[in-house]
Amino acid sequence: MTKYFSEEGSVQAVNARMGAEINPRLATVMAALVKHLHAFAKEIELTQEEWEFGIEFLTKTGQICSGERQEFILLSDVLGFSMLVDAINNRRPAGATENTVFGPFHVADAPIRQMGDCISLDGKGESCRFVGRVIDVHGEAIEGACVDVWSDNSDGFYDVQQPDIQPKWNNRGRFMTKSDGAYEFVGIKPVSYPIPDDGPVGKMLGSLGRHPYRPAHMHFMVTAPGFKTIVTHTFVGDDPYLTDDTVFGVKETLVAPFEHIKGDTEWRSPFDFVMVAEG
Amino acid sequence: MTKYFSEEGSVQAVNARMGAEINPRLATVMAALVKHLHAFAKEIELTQEEWEFGIEFLTKTGQICSGERQEFILLSDVLGFSMLVDAINNRRPAGATENTVFGPFHVADAPIRQMGDCISLDGKGESCRFVGRVIDVHGEAIEGACVDVWSDNSDGFYDVQQPDIQPKWNNRGRFMTKSDGAYEFVGIKPVSYPIPDDGPVGKMLGSLGRHPYRPAHMHFMVTAPGFKTIVTHTFVGDDPYLTDDTVFGVKETLVAPFEHIKGDTEWRSPFDFVMVAEG
Repeated sequence: MTKYFSEEGSVQAVNARMGAEINPRLATVMAALVKHLHAFAKEIELTQEEWEFGIEFLTKTGQICSGERQEFILLSDVLGFSMLVDAINNRRPAGATENTVFGPFHVADAPIRQMGDCISLDGKGESCRFVGRVIDVHGEAIEGACVDVWSDNSDGFYDVQQPDIQPKWNNRGRFMTKSDGAYEFVGIKPVSYPIPDDGPVGKMLGSLGRHPYRPAHMHFMVTAPGFKTIVTHTFVGDDPYLTDDTVFGVKETLVAPFEHIKGDTEWRSPFDFVMVAEG
Repeated sequence: MTKYFSEEGSVQAVNARMGAEINPRLATVMAALVKHLHAFAKEIELTQEEWEFGIEFLTKTGQICSGERQEFILLSDVLGFSMLVDAINNRRPAGATENTVFGPFHVADAPIRQMGDCISLDGKGESCRFVGRVIDVHGEAIEGACVDVWSDNSDGFYDVQQPDIQPKWNNRGRFMTKSDGAYEFVGIKPVSYPIPDDGPVGKMLGSLGRHPYRPAHMHFMVTAPGFKTIVTHTFVGDDPYLTDDTVFGVKETLVAPFEHIKGDTEWRSPFDFVMVAEG
C-alpha cells in the first residue's frame, strides 16, 4: 500500500485508517459501506456536478425531516432498501406469514378492543370484517397473541396525518386472542394512497417516471410470547397498484381475499397469521 | 422477473420501475446506486437496528447543515468520496499538477494583489514567501493566469470561521501572472487543524478511532484561458499528519519544499503549477 490516496487504491486508503480497537461490527459495516460507495462512483464515473447535486439532495432530505416527517425513511422505502433490510432480517420457513415494511404510521398503545369491535370511528368508507386465527407453523392456535391493527381512512389518510379531522385512534386497535387463537374486528376496506410527495423524495420519484402510490392495505403487528413478531400488511387483491407499490411492500402471500358480504359496500377479509417460535 | 419484490431480485425489482422516457444519465446513475446500495446491505446483512441508526445519522447530518456548515460534504470528505470524485474527474498526464479537494473555505472574488504582496493581514504566524511559475506541460510560461490562494491562520482557522476576530480577506488573495508566468506572495507557513468535529461526522470519526486533523497546506486555485483549472493545495512536508490527512487530500507530488530563509521564523516555498490545455 502506498502512503497516499489514489483512485485505484481509494478503498484501502480509507479503510486502513480505522483504529484497531474499535467495535468489530462497526469496522465490518463501515469497510463494506466505503467499498460499495466507491464502487458506485467508479462504475459510473460520477461527475463533480452530480456529486454536488447529491450533497444538496441529502441536505434537503435531512432538513425537511421533523417530528411528523421522516424523509430519509421515505427515501429508503422507495429505493427498496427498507424492504431489503426487512427481508434479510426476517427470513422464515415456507408457510409462516411473511413480514413487510413497518411504515411510519404505527402508534404504540392503541386501545385494546373486544373481539368483533369496530375500529372505524368516523363511520366513513366501506365496512369490512377482518377475521382469522393466529396459529403456529403446526396449525396450533396461539392464545394471548396481540393483534395490533391500523389502516388509512377512506380518504387515504392515517389519523395521525389528520389530527384535527379524524377521531383519535380512528382505524386502530389491539385485539387479544383467546384459546382458539381467533381474531375478528370491523374496519374499512382500505384504499390506495400516495406517500408524501411534496419533498425531495417525491421530486426524485417524478424524475424517475415513478408514481408515489401504495396499494390498499391493512397493517398488522402480531406479537405473542415465545414467537417472533410479525410486522406485515394484508393487501386488497384488485388494487391497481398491487404490482406497482412505490415502496415494494407487496408479497404474493400477503394478498388477502376481500369478499362482498352485502351488496357493494360490505366486505369480509379472512386471513390467518402463522407465527414462528423464537430461537 | 416475478411481479413482486424479493430479497434475491431486489435490485431488478426497483430498477425495473424507472420510466422509459427519463434522462438516460439519471437512469444509469440511479440503477448503479440501487445496485451498490443493496449489495452493501446484503454483504453485511444489515440489521434493523443498524438501519435505524443509519437513518438517524443521516437525519442529524442534514439538520446540522447551515449556511456556514456543510456536514454532508464533511462526510463525503472523511470517507474519501470527495477525493475519489475529484480523481475520476481530473485525470492528468504525468508532470501536470494534480488536483486535490476544494474544501469548504474558498471565497470567490478575493482582492487582486500585486506580485510580492503580503496576504497575512493579522501579522500572526511564521512568515513564508510562496514563489514559482505557472507553465504548460511543455514548460512554457502562461501569461494572465489567476493564482487564487487561501490558507488558515496560525491558530488553524480560516477568516470565514472567525469573522469577528480576523480581518476580512486575511490569508487570501489573487495574483495575475505576467509574461514570465511567475507568481510571488508572502503568507504564513500554514498549520495543521482539525475539521469541525463537534457534529455527527466528528462523532463517527471518534467511533472509527480516527482523528479529525488535516496536515498544514496552502490552497491554490489556478485558472487561465484555454487551460483546465487546477484546484489543489501544497503541503508542508514535515507535518505529522502528512500521511494521515483525515480527508485523504495529500498526493506525493503536492508536498512542497518549505525552506528556512531566516532563523526559525521565515520560510520560502517554491512550487510551479503545470497546466494542461483544455479539450
